[in-house]
Amino acid sequence: MLEDRSATQVRMMDYPAEKPARDVWKITHDEISELAAGEVAVRIDWASVDPGMSGWITNKRSYMPPVAPAGVMRAFGAGQVLESRAQSLQVGDWITGLLGMQTKGVFQADDPLPLAELRRIPVDTAPPNLFLSGLGMTGYTAFFGMLDIGQPKQGETVVVSAAAGAVGSVAAQLAKNAGARVIGIAGGPEKCRYLTEELGLDGAVDYKAGNVYEQLKSLTPERVDVYFDNVGGEILDAMLLRMKYKGRIVLCGGISQYGAQSEGENQVKGPSNYLVMIAQSLEMKGFTMKDYMHRVSEAIPVLAAAWSKGELKFREHVVNGVESFPDAFEMLFDGGNVGKLLIKM
Amino acid sequence: MLEDRSATQVRMMDYPAEKPARDVWKITHDEISELAAGEVAVRIDWASVDPGMSGWITNKRSYMPPVAPAGVMRAFGAGQVLESRAQSLQVGDWITGLLGMQTKGVFQADDPLPLAELRRIPVDTAPPNLFLSGLGMTGYTAFFGMLDIGQPKQGETVVVSAAAGAVGSVAAQLAKNAGARVIGIAGGPEKCRYLTEELGLDGAVDYKAGNVYEQLKSLTPERVDVYFDNVGGEILDAMLLRMKYKGRIVLCGGISQYGAQSEGENQVKGPSNYLVMIAQSLEMKGFTMKDYMHRVSEAIPVLAAAWSKGELKFREHVVNGVESFPDAFEMLFDGGNVGKLLIKM
Repeated sequence: MLEDRSATQVRMMDYPAEKPARDVWKITHDEISELAAGEVAVRIDWASVDPGMSGWITNKRSYMPPVAPAGVMRAFGAGQVLESRAQSLQVGDWITGLLGMQTKGVFQADDPLPLAELRRIPVDTAPPNLFLSGLGMTGYTAFFGMLDIGQPKQGETVVVSAAAGAVGSVAAQLAKNAGARVIGIAGGPEKCRYLTEELGLDGAVDYKAGNVYEQLKSLTPERVDVYFDNVGGEILDAMLLRMKYKGRIVLCGGISQYGAQSEGENQVKGPSNYLVMIAQSLEMKGFTMKDYMHRVSEAIPVLAAAWSKGELKFREHVVNGVESFPDAFEMLFDGGNVGKLLIKM
Repeated sequence: MLEDRSATQVRMMDYPAEKPARDVWKITHDEISELAAGEVAVRIDWASVDPGMSGWITNKRSYMPPVAPAGVMRAFGAGQVLESRAQSLQVGDWITGLLGMQTKGVFQADDPLPLAELRRIPVDTAPPNLFLSGLGMTGYTAFFGMLDIGQPKQGETVVVSAAAGAVGSVAAQLAKNAGARVIGIAGGPEKCRYLTEELGLDGAVDYKAGNVYEQLKSLTPERVDVYFDNVGGEILDAMLLRMKYKGRIVLCGGISQYGAQSEGENQVKGPSNYLVMIAQSLEMKGFTMKDYMHRVSEAIPVLAAAWSKGELKFREHVVNGVESFPDAFEMLFDGGNVGKLLIKM
């Protein structure tokens, strides 16, 4: 039996009233429990900090139940099995899954929660952190959102918001690899340079420089066939006015609106230009990875091959220590990170 | 040559600043011109008053150019050819098309404007007014919106707003005929009784009775697969919270928002619950008949057969005289009509 059972956890004590969710976190140092049959103990080396976490700490109906108050904060992680009482996993196996914001944890080897199963990862082909970014849920989200819903075709114009972000940067590159003309939206000249110079996109809109619609207009003379939305708010509204007849909008996220409330002054800003969808016969489709978990095996080889050939670049922003989670989570909303935000535990 | 060339027109003098568009109309009594080659003169007996007219008198990009100031108000009509210098139409032919809000007019027999072509109608199978309601553009809109986009299946739950209205009532009956459980939304007990007692729907929500969401909830215990939206605003927001995972929303109209502006206090209310589309993987698709004009011949026989068998009922609200157009148009927005609003010229 594993001797050192000490561990550190980040717990969500209550559902936050508004963003930023500063005052709801508590760091604890509880030992991990002894294993029951079917369980494994895992050392978690990497954890992923995702915009979707906002939904997990909101107490309403969503694609999975919210985190329970005082529970360990839900997070995707990568780590190694330290002890096993399960048939399917051996000591030494590297895995990813919803391992939580903690340094060690005990899990059922076959968790019934959607998205929650533990998956073995081949750390000989790529380092474990990559299975939390481009070769993990982030990459799969970009893959299915862009290729299965957006379906960009050769010569079409595609716009991606939060294009310097984790999902956005992969989505934009996949559209580019499919032969589309791709414009990214990001905040600030540094991120915009990253899009055009490092990722090879055809243009970048700096939303912090103002007048998003005019910037968009000059970069999309033939309007927009596919818009991959990670942000919502005013950018989604500007994009609605720029879509081509029968254009497709992929709703992947709405980070500008995640702190808003369903009623009152700080209400979520719905897309007030949505009536353009009628006049221009637009389609808008939301999704989460829940829809695609059964098809993940389609994505992995394509993403891994493109990555190893240098046709797909992933940028990671690494923060150290499980205790840094509250700061890291906030960073997501003020645009402080470029690329996939990870915590090295 | 036709001797009596006198006619009456309703002209739009300027784009209305807001709804209701009361002060922009002018009645004129200009004679119709002599025919050039390829033209026909038509006596217009019936004209249709449609919510979509709001878009035609708004000076911005839409699926067809707006009415020009001082021009005859655009309207679908049915009438008879009085004089012809065109090969394709003979004196005595009954036609429908964009004949304008006027008692007589001169038209190119083959108008290049989308939606504008003159179509011969078989007045021996149904009276001409029906080709402006259930067997006309109204019926086609319901047909393609519900059956091609909504695609209700046996046993699914479908909700239609403005279900006592022209398009809504046909859409609801088509969903019912396809085997779905259909709930209509309308204003007031009389319209709601019409939905359940005359059209045979499975339930009705009276939005004027308050708490639309609670009414909806009790009538849709298994949530909603297809929502056919004619109204937007708060009803669309309530529906977003009631959709089933992977539900489909058909955007046919947004009459509650047509008078709103793109900016300022009276701004269009975008659906503030739209983020549910991500968590529940919803699809929302807008359309106009422009997308389907090449497929109208699919709709006509199906609609005509269902009508003649009594499986499809059309209710018309008839107002007399071309001069009554300004009042009739206003009626659309305060819910004064039940069924398709027509003017008998």
